[in-house]
Amino acid sequence: MSEAELARLRGEIDASDRELTALLRRRLALVQQVGEVKKAQGLPVWVPEREASMLAARREEAAAQGLSPALIEDVLRRVMRESYTREAAAGVAARRVVVVGGAGRLGRRFAQAFATSGHTVAVLERGDWPRAPELVRDADLVLVSVPVALTAGVIAALPPLPEGCVLADLTSLKTGPVAAMLAAHPGPVLGLHPMFGPDVSSFAKEVVAVCEARPGGGWVLEQLAMWGLQLEPCTPEEHDGLMGLIQAMRHASTVAYGLSLSREGVAPARLLALSSPIYRLELAMVGRLFAQDPGLYHDIIAAHDPGPLRRYRETLGELLTLLEGPDSAAAFAECFAEVRGFFGDLGEQFLQESRDLLAGSKDRRRPG
Amino acid sequence: MSEAELARLRGEIDASDRELTALLRRRLALVQQVGEVKKAQGLPVWVPEREASMLAARREEAAAQGLSPALIEDVLRRVMRESYTREAAAGVAARRVVVVGGAGRLGRRFAQAFATSGHTVAVLERGDWPRAPELVRDADLVLVSVPVALTAGVIAALPPLPEGCVLADLTSLKTGPVAAMLAAHPGPVLGLHPMFGPDVSSFAKEVVAVCEARPGGGWVLEQLAMWGLQLEPCTPEEHDGLMGLIQAMRHASTVAYGLSLSREGVAPARLLALSSPIYRLELAMVGRLFAQDPGLYHDIIAAHDPGPLRRYRETLGELLTLLEGPDSAAAFAECFAEVRGFFGDLGEQFLQESRDLLAGSKDRRRPG
Repeated sequence: MSEAELARLRGEIDASDRELTALLRRRLALVQQVGEVKKAQGLPVWVPEREASMLAARREEAAAQGLSPALIEDVLRRVMRESYTREAAAGVAARRVVVVGGAGRLGRRFAQAFATSGHTVAVLERGDWPRAPELVRDADLVLVSVPVALTAGVIAALPPLPEGCVLADLTSLKTGPVAAMLAAHPGPVLGLHPMFGPDVSSFAKEVVAVCEARPGGGWVLEQLAMWGLQLEPCTPEEHDGLMGLIQAMRHASTVAYGLSLSREGVAPARLLALSSPIYRLELAMVGRLFAQDPGLYHDIIAAHDPGPLRRYRETLGELLTLLEGPDSAAAFAECFAEVRGFFGDLGEQFLQESRDLLAGSKDRRRPG
Repeated sequence: MSEAELARLRGEIDASDRELTALLRRRLALVQQVGEVKKAQGLPVWVPEREASMLAARREEAAAQGLSPALIEDVLRRVMRESYTREAAAGVAARRVVVVGGAGRLGRRFAQAFATSGHTVAVLERGDWPRAPELVRDADLVLVSVPVALTAGVIAALPPLPEGCVLADLTSLKTGPVAAMLAAHPGPVLGLHPMFGPDVSSFAKEVVAVCEARPGGGWVLEQLAMWGLQLEPCTPEEHDGLMGLIQAMRHASTVAYGLSLSREGVAPARLLALSSPIYRLELAMVGRLFAQDPGLYHDIIAAHDPGPLRRYRETLGELLTLLEGPDSAAAFAECFAEVRGFFGDLGEQFLQESRDLLAGSKDRRRPG
């Protein structure tokens, strides 16, 4: 009796899930049509206000029907991610773009994006330098996407560019490359640093640091915004200082952490088996780094002042001393309060964000 | 014309989303019925095999219809999370349970779970000690859930328990509490450490470390498994050694990192504005810690040997020296290879997992 009942209910769930698949497919098709209309009208891919008001309406309807608003929001956000990947990207008026280093992964990704949005794209690679003057002769944008160690040299080697041409780069440092571009070209200069890799599913919602070194590159920024990119203005000096913390110090501390952990004589599988979701995530953040290219990480770390890392090491010593001292709980609480003040409201926000994220990571948990 | 077209398409999307809300509501109602049948039959909440085969079937159907299999899987996993929260939890044959410290958050959560599954639950709190002999007289399980500093004392103060009664604890250390329980009670002893906090939405898929110190607690483990908990057997010594890395070393390094970062003279909002998704996540992992109770973190860190933390500090020094030396790239790559070997296949797995997770965190991104 109950066996049959269970089978019947599971059959109904399966049927409902097939309906769900069909519904999602229909929704994606509708969004694709919206994308085509938007492209024709030159409207951007990501319109945060439309997204926010749409989600607010859905949450309200869900709550009225007794469904968790968080559930419908999470499901729709996941579906929208798929939509951004599919939406055709609108372009500003077509221009001529030359990507220097356009065969590299990031350069290729940008070259594709420009081409998809209707621009004429040429690539200047190692073997193409004899043709360089011809390639850049009528360029509206020359975009340098080469390894950071080569950027200054490549910029200096460029032939003279047309007066109104925008010279831009995608390097992870900005002080040196921006100075090199200003020296090489009297026209508009843009220092760009995409805070994402070439394998993102879409540009929507990703961040680009922007140093507007000499004006005139407005159309380039407009195009980036149409792809749904978030532009973050900064000076080259501020950028490089922040990257010393965001990239160099963080990566270096993770490398040392992984190295130290690997020497403690435990199997990572046992660490994982006894992990809370948060520790599992933290271990994943460490382990993922070592599945990537050591040269890339070395160059980022070595390009920055080791000061923050040295001070971090000193702080670790301070904490060790504190823990061995009398009334360590009170001294610890004092340090804690210092950092809590630094993070301010962000602390609570991060706690909430990480709860959402951990719940998501649990959804994917498999046994064992 | 295009304006009207856009409005029409958006109207269709809204209608399709209302259908989605109704469909999800129907599915949750079906799952709730399944839960009731399962409860009546004494079946566990989480059946990984049923989940895996169901998802495989949906992925296949989606692919056949031209829908991304990853999309339907992510959506269904999110819906299932909601289901686990709602499913009624089945119980083993009803027993009498006493939770010592049952007014604390974790103790209360377990007391509720036992009561929901049909057991008789009594709570022994500070003021109840005079009644303790009476409360435990016919207990089948006495579960100690008090702060780690009090555990051994509370266990020693327990009145004699019935012969077949299971004595268990929920403390984050296992060597001391398990020894105390073995000394206090000649019957079955279970050391438990739930690797999650009292605020998880459901027990399904969470991990509990289990030290079966003296046999006879099988029915307790059976009950935990029915709630969907993953039981991870270990000895008290292995448990405490792993927690020295999983909890103490990790938390301490994060505290020092936050402290060091807070003294670098940058605004966290600027760090956030120029963050890649991965760095944003890492910064959130740091900031979230300081939104919590310093006493809790101090006690966890102070309870363990500071050796791993001291060695981590030394490794940071090693890395700093290496970076200043000649041919730092090659030396760096060597260290990198050492750690890559330690993580083995987990590195790639973590990279994939974190990609999924970062995509999810981007779904929730708001501008600015």
